[in-house]
Amino acid sequence: MKIDVLSLFPEMFEGVLHSSIMKKAQENDAVSFHVVDFREYSGNKHKKVDDYPYGGGAGMVLKPEPLFAAVEDLTKGTEKKPRILLMCPQGERFDQKKAEELSGEDHIVFLCGHYEGYDERIREYLVTDELSIGDFVLTGGEIAAMAMIDSIVRLLPNVLGNSDSPVLDSFSTGLLEHPQYTRPADFNGMKVPDVLLSGNHAEIEKWRQEQSLLRTFHRRKDLLDVAPLTDHQKRLLEQLKAEKN
Amino acid sequence: MKIDVLSLFPEMFEGVLHSSIMKKAQENDAVSFHVVDFREYSGNKHKKVDDYPYGGGAGMVLKPEPLFAAVEDLTKGTEKKPRILLMCPQGERFDQKKAEELSGEDHIVFLCGHYEGYDERIREYLVTDELSIGDFVLTGGEIAAMAMIDSIVRLLPNVLGNSDSPVLDSFSTGLLEHPQYTRPADFNGMKVPDVLLSGNHAEIEKWRQEQSLLRTFHRRKDLLDVAPLTDHQKRLLEQLKAEKN
Repeated sequence: MKIDVLSLFPEMFEGVLHSSIMKKAQENDAVSFHVVDFREYSGNKHKKVDDYPYGGGAGMVLKPEPLFAAVEDLTKGTEKKPRILLMCPQGERFDQKKAEELSGEDHIVFLCGHYEGYDERIREYLVTDELSIGDFVLTGGEIAAMAMIDSIVRLLPNVLGNSDSPVLDSFSTGLLEHPQYTRPADFNGMKVPDVLLSGNHAEIEKWRQEQSLLRTFHRRKDLLDVAPLTDHQKRLLEQLKAEKN
Repeated sequence: MKIDVLSLFPEMFEGVLHSSIMKKAQENDAVSFHVVDFREYSGNKHKKVDDYPYGGGAGMVLKPEPLFAAVEDLTKGTEKKPRILLMCPQGERFDQKKAEELSGEDHIVFLCGHYEGYDERIREYLVTDELSIGDFVLTGGEIAAMAMIDSIVRLLPNVLGNSDSPVLDSFSTGLLEHPQYTRPADFNGMKVPDVLLSGNHAEIEKWRQEQSLLRTFHRRKDLLDVAPLTDHQKRLLEQLKAEKN
């Protein structure tokens, strides 16, 4: 996969794209990153990329030319149009399903604004998707792009070894993860539940199913509507609902 | 505000904490960052911070000792216990309200795991909040912490100048932002709406209110339940609902 990032603060990406799994993904040729300062495409000698909004109002608006020019340059000679993702709080909420979908692309371009609004023509005629990571205000799209890049790239082949897999990916089974414990069994009086030390694998599995259901019930009831449940979990859920009434 | 970050990949934070608004916030003494590799607190000569899960299963679990020891060291001599935030997908969803609440704290500690699960005793006895930025899987808590840090720090006094303010913070007014345009008025045939060039401020304001409502109606109906609307927007919303039926 080829990933281009357009940003006015390319140095923000240094640490994230050159550490841990992202570093390994590049070494394994699963992905190549190209972070571009789109100020280089301003087309004017003052390298101005924003301007006042038509109709008045506070703040500045990113001009269309630099982003259109940068994307044109990056896609020169490529047959297939890439996915062009605009980082913005009004966008569709990014989630694991979107990460999976995007992990099938050959080429993705991330557009990151900073402080400013986007000229509407960028949304309308340039980008394929407007995406947001959540209902909170960020200074720019850079950190949102990093989050999406991480969650997409780790799904590519030859990126995660077995030893890197999380204990359990919360959004793969549909329920929240059960509690995990490791040594010591007694840490300053805080103890590991007896069942996990029992060696009885059937009891351990039963306990984990219960805990996973309980945690999901208390924290994320919305996930229960679609999650596949074991018979044991279905009975437990009926009990929990009955207790509530 | 004092922000401590515990991570096994402190180098990931370099770019983000030393650019743009985060850089300025430190220069203005609004915040100080301290990124700590908690491997230094492993307490064993192999600097091992994780171990196999009790009860079996794939993956590794972060041991309790290093994080408890690091937090104890960081809070030595401080009277008030800091907020201790665990980055984890099972946590409460971080949003602008949470950012505002946390911006009132004096001292925040971010705990970032990487690949591994957390020993349950960390959740139960050490942290004050478990937080998530969304329903997608990240390799570690680092990028989630960056997102939260950015959205919290930009709310502190003496951080954002007027010129840095976004055109309109989507989550402050309760509705999504109306479209913005800047020069040129005609960019390769893509034109700015006439009303914005008209100089008629009453019409411009009316158009913006309409567009803001329309965008919210089409993209984020959930926001309409709580957003304060102008009379003009209320009438428009009634029309939109009537058309739908």
